[in-house]
Amino acid sequence: MAFQKPTGTQDLLPGTVEIWQSVEETVRDLCRRFNYKEIRTPIFEQTELFKRGVGDTTDIVEKEMYTFVDKGNRSMTLRPENTAGVVRAYVENKLYGEPDLTKLYYIAPMFRYERPQAGRYRQFHQFGVEAFGAVDSSLDAEIIALGYQFMKEVGLSGVKVEINSVGNAASRAAYRQKLLDFLMPMKETLCKDCQSRMERNPLRVLDCKVDQDKFKGAPSILDSLDEECATHFTKVKGHLDAMGIDYEVNHRMVRGLDYYTHTAFEYKAQGIGAIDTVGGGGRYNGLVADIGGPEQPGIGFGIGMERIVLLLEKQEVAIKQAPPLDVYLVALGEKAEQETTKLLHTLRVNGLSGEKDYQGRKMKAMMKSADRMKARYAAILGDDELERGEIALKDLQTGEQQFVKIEQLVDVLKSTK
Amino acid sequence: MAFQKPTGTQDLLPGTVEIWQSVEETVRDLCRRFNYKEIRTPIFEQTELFKRGVGDTTDIVEKEMYTFVDKGNRSMTLRPENTAGVVRAYVENKLYGEPDLTKLYYIAPMFRYERPQAGRYRQFHQFGVEAFGAVDSSLDAEIIALGYQFMKEVGLSGVKVEINSVGNAASRAAYRQKLLDFLMPMKETLCKDCQSRMERNPLRVLDCKVDQDKFKGAPSILDSLDEECATHFTKVKGHLDAMGIDYEVNHRMVRGLDYYTHTAFEYKAQGIGAIDTVGGGGRYNGLVADIGGPEQPGIGFGIGMERIVLLLEKQEVAIKQAPPLDVYLVALGEKAEQETTKLLHTLRVNGLSGEKDYQGRKMKAMMKSADRMKARYAAILGDDELERGEIALKDLQTGEQQFVKIEQLVDVLKSTK
Repeated sequence: MAFQKPTGTQDLLPGTVEIWQSVEETVRDLCRRFNYKEIRTPIFEQTELFKRGVGDTTDIVEKEMYTFVDKGNRSMTLRPENTAGVVRAYVENKLYGEPDLTKLYYIAPMFRYERPQAGRYRQFHQFGVEAFGAVDSSLDAEIIALGYQFMKEVGLSGVKVEINSVGNAASRAAYRQKLLDFLMPMKETLCKDCQSRMERNPLRVLDCKVDQDKFKGAPSILDSLDEECATHFTKVKGHLDAMGIDYEVNHRMVRGLDYYTHTAFEYKAQGIGAIDTVGGGGRYNGLVADIGGPEQPGIGFGIGMERIVLLLEKQEVAIKQAPPLDVYLVALGEKAEQETTKLLHTLRVNGLSGEKDYQGRKMKAMMKSADRMKARYAAILGDDELERGEIALKDLQTGEQQFVKIEQLVDVLKSTK
Repeated sequence: MAFQKPTGTQDLLPGTVEIWQSVEETVRDLCRRFNYKEIRTPIFEQTELFKRGVGDTTDIVEKEMYTFVDKGNRSMTLRPENTAGVVRAYVENKLYGEPDLTKLYYIAPMFRYERPQAGRYRQFHQFGVEAFGAVDSSLDAEIIALGYQFMKEVGLSGVKVEINSVGNAASRAAYRQKLLDFLMPMKETLCKDCQSRMERNPLRVLDCKVDQDKFKGAPSILDSLDEECATHFTKVKGHLDAMGIDYEVNHRMVRGLDYYTHTAFEYKAQGIGAIDTVGGGGRYNGLVADIGGPEQPGIGFGIGMERIVLLLEKQEVAIKQAPPLDVYLVALGEKAEQETTKLLHTLRVNGLSGEKDYQGRKMKAMMKSADRMKARYAAILGDDELERGEIALKDLQTGEQQFVKIEQLVDVLKSTK
């Protein structure tokens, strides 16, 4: 009986995992420069947190959550997204008590029970940021710029941002009415999903793929913004212009979650033929209070790591190579083998990467192994050399060979780096 | 209503998460030198995998697993340890088809429903390695040395290794009988757990904390090893001696899992007063075949990250500090504020770390903020300076101030690094 990984999950193996490592290094360096600090919250949380934080009537909460009852009879859920958990941690740990903004990032696994399809997984990963404590438009622009810069630095081309404002509660209520006035006459012609969304959240009707063509004349939410919302949006655009971010306003983009206020945005990048959405986010000035915290504004984004990795492969972006193996030790004879174990440990403890054979193979097979591992050098130790205290060091690029005192091997190898 | 993290889980916040980042960097660099590659497997697997891979009668499988039925009606379990999942991935992805050994490492979350206590969490994390494809004793020694070197490099003191051999199936059967002969006469005097373990797995009786004193005269498994097992163990010790690893033989140490063969080992480090076990592992030559793969030997360890971090704190080990913020931008006036957003973005895109105010604070508050963030410089931009195209750059260590052309700020700051 052979076991298989669960449907919709991945094994990241050597050869692929290096792409992830490289993308994650970019995240960490970028967040350092933008002054965002890492946060790690638990992988499961109380189910109620997501009902409150993501929204009871969303597809995520209604259909896609991994919910289970723990041995203490509490309902727990593997996080389907990370904003709710980070907000919970921000409130529970009273980070709002700090005098400066709280600027956080994460790279973390999430879980949604979705129908498996290309680029969609049941365990997936997001790079995300959340910033709390300021309503200033320059923070909206900074967050948008951070995600944009991330995609540029990992090497994606054709990166674009779409932005919109979904306003405050009053603007949205006004818009909701205008939109219903527009949709009502065509209600019978719309798909079942749209008809049901019209009652629960008419703004989401605009997301419908089926009926997209019918919405060309729909009113724009931007025309319903009050002065405060309109001014905020104008300022955000001004900052983005100043920073040279390539963005477009898309007044139809409302995002899938209920908690957004003011700025909403999505990142797109060039896929094969089509433009793919790789992430998005927005401001959520009411969410912290909604889940039991003080009135503190927030804003953030989530970017799908699987989508980034897929696009890097599609766009054939060259990934920064891991440094090659410094040396492969080849032992010929029993005494030499014993000495090799010790010598290899000495090299590794002194900062060099090294490998040897563990399978009793012949010299030819060992040299092939050194080639496969792209070792810079092979160091060959026979019992004769051992008696003289020397080792033969072969440069695997040039084929040149020299004899080196065993106790000098660390220094010689370091000097060639 | 305020939400709390689930019992037995942690939030890792800025100020603490840096210790984790530093330990993880050590892991990655060390594994590079020892030529272990990262693997990432799914966080949940089929429940059956752990029953088979960890053992049906272990405490882990009997009492501690987070098991749930997914929406497709399959029993899934959050991994309680990672060897089973890595072995599953090794088999499923046919990594045994490679000509070289498969040497893997992971840093990954695990889940066990245990009674919460100091240093024990329901979501915990392990750094682990697994190597497949060789029975050679030098591989046992390399793995033991890797974990030992890890603890030295993170800065723990008082690090020790205890090793033992649990032999092969024949040696263990012989020993089992000898041990039962020793235990039988005292059976009535032993605790309930011991009495139950005597039937299921008498070797585990030796782990009992309650009855420890009664086992002083117990036979040693080392006396039951056949020649092959004894030779292997002697060679492992020889390699460890050659590498200068501080180890002791503990013939009572049998580890909690059933799958070990030959070498078993544990790492200890100096806690407060007591010596704490921080990890361990062993050889498992039958496990790959047990879970449906070919006959391939394996060996590995798992080290508890929470315990490492706790000991680093107890031992007051200084952690490598993150580099300080390069510059805090202070804008005075509306035009300057607009310019600051752009300038800050330019600095960040060019590799410098920078911050500014987002809360409309006064100069004094901004300078305090710069101090709190340990910024190297404050760069102060007023509308006057802006007109001259200059910015005032203040060294926050020396208090010295100079004027710098705005377009030269990147170069000036880079030259001071």
